[in-house]
Amino acid sequence: MTGLTCHGCVETVTAQLIAVRGVKEVNIDLVEGGVSTVSVVADRELTDGEVEGVLHAGGAFALARVDAMSFLGSTTNAPDLAVDVLFFDGAEELDAIGPWEVLRFWAELGDRRVDVRAVSLDGKSVRCAKGLTVDVDGSLGDRPIDLLIVPGGRGADILAGDLEQVGRISRLAEQGATMASVCTGAQVLGAAGLLDGINATTHWMARGQLQKSHPSARISSGERWVDSGDVVTSAGVSAGIDMALHLVDRFDSRAVAHRICSVMEYPWHPEARGEAVIST
Amino acid sequence: MTGLTCHGCVETVTAQLIAVRGVKEVNIDLVEGGVSTVSVVADRELTDGEVEGVLHAGGAFALARVDAMSFLGSTTNAPDLAVDVLFFDGAEELDAIGPWEVLRFWAELGDRRVDVRAVSLDGKSVRCAKGLTVDVDGSLGDRPIDLLIVPGGRGADILAGDLEQVGRISRLAEQGATMASVCTGAQVLGAAGLLDGINATTHWMARGQLQKSHPSARISSGERWVDSGDVVTSAGVSAGIDMALHLVDRFDSRAVAHRICSVMEYPWHPEARGEAVIST
Repeated sequence: MTGLTCHGCVETVTAQLIAVRGVKEVNIDLVEGGVSTVSVVADRELTDGEVEGVLHAGGAFALARVDAMSFLGSTTNAPDLAVDVLFFDGAEELDAIGPWEVLRFWAELGDRRVDVRAVSLDGKSVRCAKGLTVDVDGSLGDRPIDLLIVPGGRGADILAGDLEQVGRISRLAEQGATMASVCTGAQVLGAAGLLDGINATTHWMARGQLQKSHPSARISSGERWVDSGDVVTSAGVSAGIDMALHLVDRFDSRAVAHRICSVMEYPWHPEARGEAVIST
Repeated sequence: MTGLTCHGCVETVTAQLIAVRGVKEVNIDLVEGGVSTVSVVADRELTDGEVEGVLHAGGAFALARVDAMSFLGSTTNAPDLAVDVLFFDGAEELDAIGPWEVLRFWAELGDRRVDVRAVSLDGKSVRCAKGLTVDVDGSLGDRPIDLLIVPGGRGADILAGDLEQVGRISRLAEQGATMASVCTGAQVLGAAGLLDGINATTHWMARGQLQKSHPSARISSGERWVDSGDVVTSAGVSAGIDMALHLVDRFDSRAVAHRICSVMEYPWHPEARGEAVIST
């Protein structure tokens, strides 16, 4: 590694590397102005890209090559948690990509091995509600998952009325996936029968309609998200970011959630559940 | 229009339609349980889709057909403001799509005629920092613009080092476009010479490096965004949403910015400039 000129640099780089998921130990043999040797002990294999990404964020340090990285080994390559973010035509961009950002940071910075993908109903690219076209990594249900994020947007109403697609979502829930909706994505979970008798929320403008469609659901107001165990629902659009941070808190740890808030500079309130923004 | 059963419905629909940009007057001739006639007077042509979108959000009202819409006419089809959001390989998703969401809502709900596009350096699709591939509407500089959003992410550092691309950004600034960066997008504006002698901000982790690269810039901390007139910069990742709302406030009105906060359920603080999230 080049660019290390003092013990301050060593401390900076050590702190940055220790923050990487799986890293247990960092030792730096400083050669001022030359090529310093960095030894990293981790419980999983780190890629050059991961190490470079971390170093890049913090300063002008360049990685000469990775040649002193010990890998403690792992019993399996499978992730601890498989997470899919569902995209569909007319999905509200921020509903999906707010959680996407949080969850992909989780995959980078978390203490658990998390694999996060973007999926669509058929694996093809989708045109979101505000006109952005997004490519995806796979299709809904093409692998067992632990968590599905269902965004809202005008496409969610159409999806909620499509019995075949709703059936695919029901099956994922039956197979044990936690289902998390953002905004009017709650209509999709409702159509799949997942809101009956539980506490849930949605966009403030859509609460009345959701309550009417699902009389046994208890639709609450004033909360950024509602965690009912197997089903988690959030308020409108930006509240999906808060819910995703809560999911990191729940499935990993509060410390990891705060780490993500810090890199995203997002003011998340785990206890207060955020400020309600119901009208102006 | 069908589904209107009482004067409460009439009030709801009237309020929803009045909120649409350009609508000046709404009159509803109620036929309970049948087809009511809705007359809309607007200073621009409304599409069926726009009207349906609004009605859909609020309840179970269905549009039979649009046949009583008066169009006051407009002197020009050109937008008041042309806004491009720049995407590039390695751009942080939320840096770009947070503002995208705000600005596209502005185009729908604002009092000014705003045209917002996604662009890339060459008009081709890009792969963002967290792996999402996004298609775009055009390429940087292919039309005169009033405002450019430059996101951060690891791709921003590469872009900042590419003299040819930085030159294209300088030229847009010279032609009068307001330049707005999110997160480490400030490095790109800095490379274009746009930060010299002005107040600016960036991601808290990148402040030191930005200050070092641009000694005459005054890099501040603790603010979600810094408006220096022709150049506006925001703190990291999610702060781009706050900055975009400020740009709506500045180029349109505070009322429109609050309208967007309301539909996005985003707790924006125009005076306080948001809560600083510098570390955990």
